[in-house]
Amino acid sequence: MRVQSVEKAFRVLGAFDAMRPSLSLTQLAAAIELDKSATQRFAHTLTMLGYLSKDPTTKRFALTVKTLDLGYRFIRTNALVERARPYLLHISNTTEETVNLTVLDGAEVVFVSRMAGRHVINADIVVGMRSPAYCSAPGIAMLARLPPEEAVAILDSTERHPITPNTVWRMDGLRDKLRLTAARGYATAFEEMHHGDLSVAAAIVDAHGRPIGAINIATLRSRTTPEAAEQTYMPMVVDAARAISRS
Amino acid sequence: MRVQSVEKAFRVLGAFDAMRPSLSLTQLAAAIELDKSATQRFAHTLTMLGYLSKDPTTKRFALTVKTLDLGYRFIRTNALVERARPYLLHISNTTEETVNLTVLDGAEVVFVSRMAGRHVINADIVVGMRSPAYCSAPGIAMLARLPPEEAVAILDSTERHPITPNTVWRMDGLRDKLRLTAARGYATAFEEMHHGDLSVAAAIVDAHGRPIGAINIATLRSRTTPEAAEQTYMPMVVDAARAISRS
Repeated sequence: MRVQSVEKAFRVLGAFDAMRPSLSLTQLAAAIELDKSATQRFAHTLTMLGYLSKDPTTKRFALTVKTLDLGYRFIRTNALVERARPYLLHISNTTEETVNLTVLDGAEVVFVSRMAGRHVINADIVVGMRSPAYCSAPGIAMLARLPPEEAVAILDSTERHPITPNTVWRMDGLRDKLRLTAARGYATAFEEMHHGDLSVAAAIVDAHGRPIGAINIATLRSRTTPEAAEQTYMPMVVDAARAISRS
Repeated sequence: MRVQSVEKAFRVLGAFDAMRPSLSLTQLAAAIELDKSATQRFAHTLTMLGYLSKDPTTKRFALTVKTLDLGYRFIRTNALVERARPYLLHISNTTEETVNLTVLDGAEVVFVSRMAGRHVINADIVVGMRSPAYCSAPGIAMLARLPPEEAVAILDSTERHPITPNTVWRMDGLRDKLRLTAARGYATAFEEMHHGDLSVAAAIVDAHGRPIGAINIATLRSRTTPEAAEQTYMPMVVDAARAISRS
């Protein structure tokens, strides 16, 4: 029933990453574990379709700008992104901090929209970024809206480890965090993923109360305290998430 | 030599857009001009791979957040984006206006990186956006670095029409614009695509002098005049483009 050549084509595209931005045919074949002639057919097809380029001199393949099209299409067709935009904009203007819209994909949160604060360097490359859910405020905010056994199963499906001394990563700690988050309706993560990073998040839910996204405000310890961040930003994310959930 | 099923799979993904954010199997089959059983196989495969979702109630298909992965991979592997980032950041901090990095793809410019100014609403959804090259400052800046016959062939390959009263779209006017741009090393577009939009751009070139990207500063007529924008921003984009070209 499944079309195997489609899976292989996506394996070819998935072989490129920051460590391997370009690949020769031999490297590509090794990376996807296909023989060279099959790899050649897929690479050729993807080059014809415009998703790969082949350097005429080095004969190395690389991803092209056309790979941006699909994701751009998704962002433009996503109702949640549309609905959330005015709220993100309002919070961003009010706070001058970074505001993100994320969704849960397995055990990861994916950034689908962002208004960057005034202090952010890589404002431009964040849409599509993924983070582990267990140590991020939006991840915990969304997981806390699932039935506890479902949230635990998701957390159990992924490798967890302490990223900073503050990371809550053992299941006991995470269960407590989920209970607290469910009870009070918002999540915090203070320096759990990066040094100095403070984040406050609330989940957006569908008509059945299931999480469909989260909104979070991120600031830095150099500008405020965890207590002040929680107090100031909690009402903003909670109100926005509630308004987006209803709309 | 080409793998036809791969082409068909991308046709399925390409069927979704802002007007058709979700599609039933029947609609999908009609959109891509395949019979329903073939369409079903591709939709199923893409759903298994995670690029499509199927609503359990409505049975309609939609793009998923996973479609962001490929483009994110491209952005993270793209050397030009990396090299340009500090220059974009510097200009953004200095001017508080929007600074973009674009590349030429056929007769279109594609936005690959952006630092949004303080006055921009949809800062988040711009990477992947496409604009016609003929009426944009970065488009003209890049085309002007090609051999004139090549630039004209590209401009001839696409439909052109006046978008605003200021749009230069006839080939005579575009030839003049290319000559002027080549001579002075930067391009301007004043309200050629949107009312009130002022843009100044310079091309980034490779070792052979061929354009590989452009950097532009965009501001609004409500904040400055075309003359002042040109005078202020021309040296910034020219210097940055030259520095990125060399690095």
